[in-house]
Formats: sequence, structure tokens, C-alpha cells
Amino acid sequence: MHSLQFTAESSSNGMLERDFLVGDVPGVLWSPASGPDRAPLVLMGHGGGNHKKHPAMAGRAQRLVTGCGFHVAVIDAPGHGDRPRTAYDEQVSAALAEARAAGEPVGPIVKRHNAHTAELNVPEWRAVLDALQQLPEIGADGPVGYFGVKMGTAVGVPLVAVEPRITAAVFGLHWPDDLAELAKQITVPIEFDLQWDDEHIPREAGLALFDAFASKEKTLHANAGRQGELPRFEADSAVRFFARHFGRAVTSQT
Amino acid sequence: MHSLQFTAESSSNGMLERDFLVGDVPGVLWSPASGPDRAPLVLMGHGGGNHKKHPAMAGRAQRLVTGCGFHVAVIDAPGHGDRPRTAYDEQVSAALAEARAAGEPVGPIVKRHNAHTAELNVPEWRAVLDALQQLPEIGADGPVGYFGVKMGTAVGVPLVAVEPRITAAVFGLHWPDDLAELAKQITVPIEFDLQWDDEHIPREAGLALFDAFASKEKTLHANAGRQGELPRFEADSAVRFFARHFGRAVTSQT
Repeated sequence: MHSLQFTAESSSNGMLERDFLVGDVPGVLWSPASGPDRAPLVLMGHGGGNHKKHPAMAGRAQRLVTGCGFHVAVIDAPGHGDRPRTAYDEQVSAALAEARAAGEPVGPIVKRHNAHTAELNVPEWRAVLDALQQLPEIGADGPVGYFGVKMGTAVGVPLVAVEPRITAAVFGLHWPDDLAELAKQITVPIEFDLQWDDEHIPREAGLALFDAFASKEKTLHANAGRQGELPRFEADSAVRFFARHFGRAVTSQT
Repeated sequence: MHSLQFTAESSSNGMLERDFLVGDVPGVLWSPASGPDRAPLVLMGHGGGNHKKHPAMAGRAQRLVTGCGFHVAVIDAPGHGDRPRTAYDEQVSAALAEARAAGEPVGPIVKRHNAHTAELNVPEWRAVLDALQQLPEIGADGPVGYFGVKMGTAVGVPLVAVEPRITAAVFGLHWPDDLAELAKQITVPIEFDLQWDDEHIPREAGLALFDAFASKEKTLHANAGRQGELPRFEADSAVRFFARHFGRAVTSQT
């Protein structure tokens, strides 16, 4: 088992930001700057083509850390952020560019790429979680959540399906193709984001993935608008979802 | 035009409760006990078979009044609460009891009853709103919202469709039959509650009503469970929805 090595540390806006490596997987751990108190951990999966410190990740982390006192960890998916890009990654980028230029649907390429990424990334996440739980401020028995849409859902659904340590999850913006069968194995509470006018994912496909989860408590949040228009207030809602399940008050939201 | 007459007044848990009459329509106005400050008004429509002070109404009012400082008004629908019951109302009750005893679907009876109630209740609501806006703590130009599910949606959709003073609304738990065409005229922000396993309203019917709203900002909250299992956290979500649109912070929620 790999242990976790911190490689850099900084602080701003009430958040302590620590870069880490587990084996050759780079990640970031955000925590309250006020101190390393034992607190719940939320794992976040980033979207395709971005990375662990993308503004969407940092923004959600800020809400979870300073709003609820949680720890938040994100790792770079294979071929993303600080990780080497393979010939396969270059092929995917070229295929996407070609489809976009030709005005063809990118869905089939994205789905294949996401499924491939999940296969590599799920065991990495489990090893990173092992290592994170060695830290005294996280511990082996605290609550763990998962939050990721788009490629973050492609990775998160198979992860949560096999990982009993994760007891609440926020997913969304994905097709059911590779995920519905795995979603049927998931029984923990979930919140699921869907864009009602998604230009890539047919409405029925998004609803079918939500429907597949076996969770007794599951909530669909469907908003008018295209995929890129997922409202910012859904990030606040995700924070409240984790706060509700992990027994924490949200202190800094309107 | 009828003016508003207060008929009783009491205070508890930070809420001032004032019963009123507008013509022969009885209502209740809940306000912050701390003082009659100018604040947004939320109109709430109660469900079929209950009344203006049903615990569901008082509970939602408490959240809106002490959480956001809003005023909240509810009136008894025709045949409900303190209002006389007609031969028609008795027929509906008998038909419902008969259908339930026979294990037959109550949907067709409920839909007819709700449409009839809306026809009478919408003009009453408009007169009550006129009268409420004469009060200095409400005024003629402050924000007005509407919140009602089930029969509250059957009344609220036609009301909001014709009433430009209402600028944000929470609806849910209803069939599209009598409402979809009216929903197409509604463009204000809405939040819409649907129960994924509703035993009375087919999933496709609920989704069709949500789909019909012309609002640029509309959010569907669909939760696993039967109609009676609408989670309590959706009331908190409705409060945050109004707080967001009316520019108020929510102070007393977790």
C-alpha cells in the first residue's frame, strides 16, 4: 500500500491546500485553515479535459470546506492535469476536435473515453482513499462522500458501487449506457443533476440513469437549460446534501 | 373592492398570526413577531381536504417567516376550513370514499374537484392580494411568491398565469390535464416537486406538467417515494428558492 506524501502546502480564503502524491497519482487535499480537526471527507471527480484544481473543483471545495468544515480531495484522472498523456489520450482529443469541426455528435467518443478513464481511475481512487484515511484528521471510520458530474459521474458510479466506505454521493450529466447496471447496485443516498435541455444527453437517457439507482433516498434536480448551464445554486445544494447526511450545519451560505 | 378585516391575533415561536376576512373569504397572515417591517409576501395554497392552518401550512410558514422575515398568507379554499360546504362538496367526499373503498383510482375525481376549486378560488385570491397589498407592511410593489402543491398547484397555476404580481412560484404533485396549457403562459422562475413513485400521478404526467412551463429558470425536484413521502427538506428548498429570488438570506436553517 502506498502512503500519502504531501508535496506542497498553501493557504487562502480560510482553506489549507495541500498537494499530494499517492504512488504516481497527484491529488489535492483542501481542509479548513483553522485546524486539522477530524471531519468528514468528500472526494470530488473532475470533468473530462480538466483537472484537480479546475475552478469548478476549487469553488465546490471552498463551499464544502469553509461552509461545513469538511475535507475535500480531488485527484487528476489519467491523462489529465499533471499526469502524462498517452497516445490514446491524443487520439481522443483529435477525434473530439474532428467531430466538433464536422458538427457531429461527440457523445459516442465521450462515453468511450469516460468508460476507459473509469476503468483506470477507480482502483486509483480506492488506493488514495486508503492513504487519506491514514491521516489523523480524516481517520478510518469517518463519513466519506463522492461528488462528480459528467466524467466525474462516469468514474464515481463504478467507484461508489464497489466502495462501501462512501455513504452519500452527488452525480449527474451522464448517459446510462455504461453506468445503469452499476447504479442498480448503489443504495446510498444520492442527489442527481440533469439539464432538461442537454444538447448531448437525451432527456430520457438522463432520466433512465437516475431511475437505475437502487437508493431509497434519491433526488433528481433537473434544471431548464443546456449542459453548460447547470446553475451555480446546484453546487450549494450538493453542499447541503452532504451537510444533511453527515450531520453538519452549513454556516456560510445564503 | 373588499378591504381586509383582522378578526383575531396571537403570537408564538417568533410568528405573529392574524386571522382575517376579505369579503367572506377567511384567511391567515403570518408575519415576523419582531415587527411589521416591509417584506416580501408568499401566498400558499393548501391541499384538498385540508385548510389554511393545517400543520403543513403552519410549518412552511414558520420557515418562511422566522427563516427569511417574509409575510405568508393562506386562505381557505371553497368548501374547506371555515367555509360552508355545498352539496357539491358532499358529493365529492362521497365519491372519493366510494372509490377508495372499491380500490378504484381517485385521480379522475381529484382532478375534476381541483379544477372546480381553482375556478372559484383564483378570483378570490386576486381580491385577497389586492387587500393584502393595502397593508403598509406588504405594500403594492413588494415581491410576491406563490407556494402550493397538489390542489395548491391546481389553484396556483391558473392564478400565476393571470397574475403579474406573482414573480416566483413553487408547484408540484399534479397532473397536466387542466394545467399544461396555462403553464405554457408562465415565465417566472419555478421550482416543481414530483414524487418518482407517485401512486396517483404517472411519472410521465408529472414530467409533462414540469415540461410545459415556459419559465427560463425552472427546476424539477423529483424524489424517490410515493406521493405522501415528499421529503421535508423540500420545504426548506422552497424557502431557499424564495430567499434567492427575493434577495433575502435564510438565517435559521441547517
